[in-house]
Amino acid sequence: MATYSTIQTQTVSADNGVDYAYRSVGSSTAALPLLLLQHFRGNLDNWDPALIDALAQERRVITFDNTGVGASSGRTPNTVAAMAADAIEFVDAMGLDKVDLLGFSLGSFVAQEIALHRPDLVNRIILASAAPQGATGIHGWHPDVIAAVGGQEPSPEGYMRVFFTSTPAGQEAGQAAAGRIFGGRTDGHDEPTTWQTRLAQYDAVTHWGIPDHARLQRLQGITQPVLVANGDSDPMIPPKYSHLLAGLLPDAQIKIYSDAAHGFLFQHHKEFAADVNTFLGRQ
Amino acid sequence: MATYSTIQTQTVSADNGVDYAYRSVGSSTAALPLLLLQHFRGNLDNWDPALIDALAQERRVITFDNTGVGASSGRTPNTVAAMAADAIEFVDAMGLDKVDLLGFSLGSFVAQEIALHRPDLVNRIILASAAPQGATGIHGWHPDVIAAVGGQEPSPEGYMRVFFTSTPAGQEAGQAAAGRIFGGRTDGHDEPTTWQTRLAQYDAVTHWGIPDHARLQRLQGITQPVLVANGDSDPMIPPKYSHLLAGLLPDAQIKIYSDAAHGFLFQHHKEFAADVNTFLGRQ
Repeated sequence: MATYSTIQTQTVSADNGVDYAYRSVGSSTAALPLLLLQHFRGNLDNWDPALIDALAQERRVITFDNTGVGASSGRTPNTVAAMAADAIEFVDAMGLDKVDLLGFSLGSFVAQEIALHRPDLVNRIILASAAPQGATGIHGWHPDVIAAVGGQEPSPEGYMRVFFTSTPAGQEAGQAAAGRIFGGRTDGHDEPTTWQTRLAQYDAVTHWGIPDHARLQRLQGITQPVLVANGDSDPMIPPKYSHLLAGLLPDAQIKIYSDAAHGFLFQHHKEFAADVNTFLGRQ
Repeated sequence: MATYSTIQTQTVSADNGVDYAYRSVGSSTAALPLLLLQHFRGNLDNWDPALIDALAQERRVITFDNTGVGASSGRTPNTVAAMAADAIEFVDAMGLDKVDLLGFSLGSFVAQEIALHRPDLVNRIILASAAPQGATGIHGWHPDVIAAVGGQEPSPEGYMRVFFTSTPAGQEAGQAAAGRIFGGRTDGHDEPTTWQTRLAQYDAVTHWGIPDHARLQRLQGITQPVLVANGDSDPMIPPKYSHLLAGLLPDAQIKIYSDAAHGFLFQHHKEFAADVNTFLGRQ
């Protein structure tokens, strides 16, 4: 079976005129496809292959570049709602009528919005390093965080500081994940994300974080089973917001991973993949 | 040192005309007094002596019957806000100007209201088996729960079903706690709570549970450090509401105790007392 590091990137043309770059690994008739929604400035290459391959043991896993990101055409929109609409266009173009969703960070915002905008499309949802729209205290992220990952030339050190803890175990996990992410694939790399994508995505993140208590009530509209997961030391989206999601979503379970920051799902890829497979396996 | 099973009940007359029954154990100049706020239909005798004695190792611990409850005079009011006002009258009558609060179940509602009504009085707060006002899904509790503990003649079986899990460990812990609570004290028992207290307290609980998303925002006004604690299998106030509290309170930490129901703090009295002492010890 092809692995995430060897599978070739494909393209699908959607009705909105965008050509979406995507990768699809794994297959199973026993499970729905799992659609992955990527983090701020991330492209197809920024998923940890070890995580994708573990998930693909039990289901088809699809990663894609949303509009304007990496090798996909178009201009990245500047709201989460528009990103969700564009993700739905991709799913429609792929001919899928029901999927599970795994949204990571900005991707978790998009996952919530997809579930609210087209509930029938979504079976189950995993929200990793997530926050609901309107929550207090994440407007534009902490200055140290956006300084670490928001610059013109993002540094590996900044990425490590946000994605992994400073403990020996955290740093070791970070080095290992970086090795898998940047060292696994030998050809067919994705296009890097642009400054336009960075600006538009950060505008979307900031808009999502405008404090607005009333917006939290929208979570009542997400009736699918949800697994909320977070690192216990995430500086970008602290676990407080996972507790908030678990407290407001009608059907949620929560797991907090220890000694882990924003990249908990890469650090604990075996445990997290097993938890996701168990959660989705209930279907 | 006197223990909670041997200490005599005292009385203090407050400015509102109520004579409050209370017990005070332990002493320490290094810590503030810890005021305990009791659960639905509970009186002075319904606190687990093992828990109180463990807490009293490091601080003065005060339990009391609020207005109309047990041996206290007056008529039990039917709102949490009025219960909080009455608790503040008791604290004033005791000559205390700053306390830590530990509220259990209905007592956790009262603790939140005290912190909102007189913030200067409150240093740190422990919310055990708690929920915020306005949360969806706890309006009058689940029918099985109020049937088990809300009748004219509450049965030990009903209490066990709500306070302890049905696992062997849960049942064993329940029998042990009941033995300590009902078998420890040989004289000077409290008066039983009345049907008036039951009716008024249940009205207050039901009023607290009217779904009202806007009310959740009041938690932003509780700026003290809060420890939110719950059993993982509490049928009366499920842990979902502890996650909600941890997600909305400005300065909260959360701990969920395993294989435990509403009486988690009695079942895990050693662990919980240690957690509380550690949390309060930060002061």
